[in-house]
Amino acid sequence: MYEGFNREKLKQRKQDIENKYNNYKLQNLKLDMSRGKPSWDQLNLSNGIYENVDDFISDGGVDSRNYGILDGLLEMRKLFAQIIGVSPDEVIAGDSSSLNMMYDAISRAFNHGIMGNEPWCKLDKVKFLCPSPGYDRHFAICELFKIEMITIPMDNNGPDMDMVEAIVGEDDSVKGIWCNPMYSNPTGIIYSDEVIERLAVMKTKAKDFRIFWDNAYALHHLYEENTQLNILNECKKAGNEDRVFMFYSTAKISFAGAGVAAIAASKGNIENIKKLISIQTIGPNKINQLLHVRFFKDLEGVKAHMKKHAEILRPKFEAVLYILDKNLGNLNIAKWTNPKGGYFISFDTPKGCAKEVVAKAKEAGVSFTNAGATYPYGIDPDDKNIRIAPSYPQIEELKKAMEIFCICVELVVLQKLL
Amino acid sequence: MYEGFNREKLKQRKQDIENKYNNYKLQNLKLDMSRGKPSWDQLNLSNGIYENVDDFISDGGVDSRNYGILDGLLEMRKLFAQIIGVSPDEVIAGDSSSLNMMYDAISRAFNHGIMGNEPWCKLDKVKFLCPSPGYDRHFAICELFKIEMITIPMDNNGPDMDMVEAIVGEDDSVKGIWCNPMYSNPTGIIYSDEVIERLAVMKTKAKDFRIFWDNAYALHHLYEENTQLNILNECKKAGNEDRVFMFYSTAKISFAGAGVAAIAASKGNIENIKKLISIQTIGPNKINQLLHVRFFKDLEGVKAHMKKHAEILRPKFEAVLYILDKNLGNLNIAKWTNPKGGYFISFDTPKGCAKEVVAKAKEAGVSFTNAGATYPYGIDPDDKNIRIAPSYPQIEELKKAMEIFCICVELVVLQKLL
Repeated sequence: MYEGFNREKLKQRKQDIENKYNNYKLQNLKLDMSRGKPSWDQLNLSNGIYENVDDFISDGGVDSRNYGILDGLLEMRKLFAQIIGVSPDEVIAGDSSSLNMMYDAISRAFNHGIMGNEPWCKLDKVKFLCPSPGYDRHFAICELFKIEMITIPMDNNGPDMDMVEAIVGEDDSVKGIWCNPMYSNPTGIIYSDEVIERLAVMKTKAKDFRIFWDNAYALHHLYEENTQLNILNECKKAGNEDRVFMFYSTAKISFAGAGVAAIAASKGNIENIKKLISIQTIGPNKINQLLHVRFFKDLEGVKAHMKKHAEILRPKFEAVLYILDKNLGNLNIAKWTNPKGGYFISFDTPKGCAKEVVAKAKEAGVSFTNAGATYPYGIDPDDKNIRIAPSYPQIEELKKAMEIFCICVELVVLQKLL
Repeated sequence: MYEGFNREKLKQRKQDIENKYNNYKLQNLKLDMSRGKPSWDQLNLSNGIYENVDDFISDGGVDSRNYGILDGLLEMRKLFAQIIGVSPDEVIAGDSSSLNMMYDAISRAFNHGIMGNEPWCKLDKVKFLCPSPGYDRHFAICELFKIEMITIPMDNNGPDMDMVEAIVGEDDSVKGIWCNPMYSNPTGIIYSDEVIERLAVMKTKAKDFRIFWDNAYALHHLYEENTQLNILNECKKAGNEDRVFMFYSTAKISFAGAGVAAIAASKGNIENIKKLISIQTIGPNKINQLLHVRFFKDLEGVKAHMKKHAEILRPKFEAVLYILDKNLGNLNIAKWTNPKGGYFISFDTPKGCAKEVVAKAKEAGVSFTNAGATYPYGIDPDDKNIRIAPSYPQIEELKKAMEIFCICVELVVLQKLL
């Protein structure tokens, strides 16, 4: 760190940084970098969904305004089937929130059991594998249900599969693993095909072990299109077709709070889920589904739309990376990811600095996701990981927020050093 | 029954009825009287919700397209607060399905417990009181969760309160009661103010006993407006403000499958629920809420709209009652309700005939709700109750279906008599 800096120069540097920090504080800023929210102009891309609503009848003659169609409109399931690479009868299209679908999948497992297995609420202990850094809302569901979380380290190919295989092979209380396989939240890495194969093939002690495959960013490329193996296909090949629940949504395709979400899985799983949700609901909001399909038409329509998102997001990611590099690139005090898609950049401070960096930024009017949030129980053992979400602010705000962020990083590191 | 008919005349009557029945069978009809679905022209009343969607920003400046606002848009909560007679901070406005909100309330009680009480999944036994005849989907939730259902008889004032008080006062495994207080499904009765007061005041052994107040038809008057005491107010007066969960939806105000649902309860309950659903979802579909509020504006707007529904529904109810009276009125073989609102007419055959009447109708191409569905476990102990749903068919179809129904009733009764 700070190679070539003697103590005097470090002190001088600290003084400069403190001055800059205090100047920013005087500006009473209020910038939000905390969540992966699409921006105003991204949302505007989909306003056409609500233009020209002339009738409400689906291709199959279903009146989307009335009750019924538990698993969603056929045309919506067909569109998701194209996106996911499965058949329409392996899809349930629901309301807007894939998070809600994940929560419900866990809740059903606790109350009713999965495909005839013992309900998890009857077990002494339920554990989940949590590749980390990962998505805080996955971990929050586990915490609420008192599921013991086991942290699995991640590298550029995905979770540490030696560790995953060893644990699921011997402990039948391990019932699931959270995966965010394409542009993983927050690191942006893409699970390798080898990792996907191993997840599909591995022996699991628990019969009702499920991979929770949250593919929120499957189509969210910033540059060229990246692809990866289809986990359901791989599970089928390995004779483990019931192993995976795949979750998708248009939250970051159409409207974050008013898109359409879906779960995809083997026919056996889908039948089991439909039987249970037939008691929970009469069906999802089919008008929203109909309007979505009319707007996007097919997978090609979605892909063309995603290019427009990329055009808005790419300069923001590049601005963040440029500012990080410009300010911190030569100091060797931090590292960060350079993702080719998704919604986040993952930033590592030196050990023991992340919480303080986020607190300092907050003090200067810039909120980041809480440090620690990317780890189970909100505890980052090294207190180093910070999730940067470039999507929501307009670019000038974003640049300012990142300048302040870099200053906060230096400030905390220099305070530790001196 | 059939006073003044000797055996010969009964035989002749049976022959006539059989001839009529067989003639109908030849017509290969396909009429659906099974569910309380609004009709095409009722749904058309609300098409304006999707007209002129010019922007997506709420009065408070919230972008309804983006993430957030766990408890729904403030203007939607205000509208529900007017409808329900509570304050906006006693309301959570959600997605389309109030059934889903009821299911989720039960599911949360099982997994996490209510306001710090023991989760129901940890208990040996959970029981619910089920005033019957009642709503089959309430009973289906209980059955799925293995909640033991205790049938409570109903009269014109609501459930038998002596029985309710005796049971809840001594058995702490009794955790809830299903109530459909205004135009009760299927009898159409209105809970009396005395019943509502007794529900609010009664002593319950279980601290976490909840009244599941499914007020689906609160504003669904066919004639003049009927009102009743507000259960939450009564509970507050009695010092039992946490006792009730109130459920509402616009399913039968706007769109059956794409309306807005709400739960209302004491602030303590609402805080408890919000804490838990903050893990389940980021928020409901706010665009749908915004469009609803813009269309209906306020309670007066909703009431004016409900008058239009009544104009469509009233002739249907009257046609059903006219045909029942014309064909069966003098025979003294059946009785039925004459509701002033809601979606159903409840019909009682002589003991042991309902299943066969429904089967005969089905054979002639007319489907009714399964006999028994209005009782816990789908078992009507007297096999006499049939739910008639006049809303969905167009009036000419409806008349034909009811003529056939009356013939089926006579056919089954005459077969038993002879």
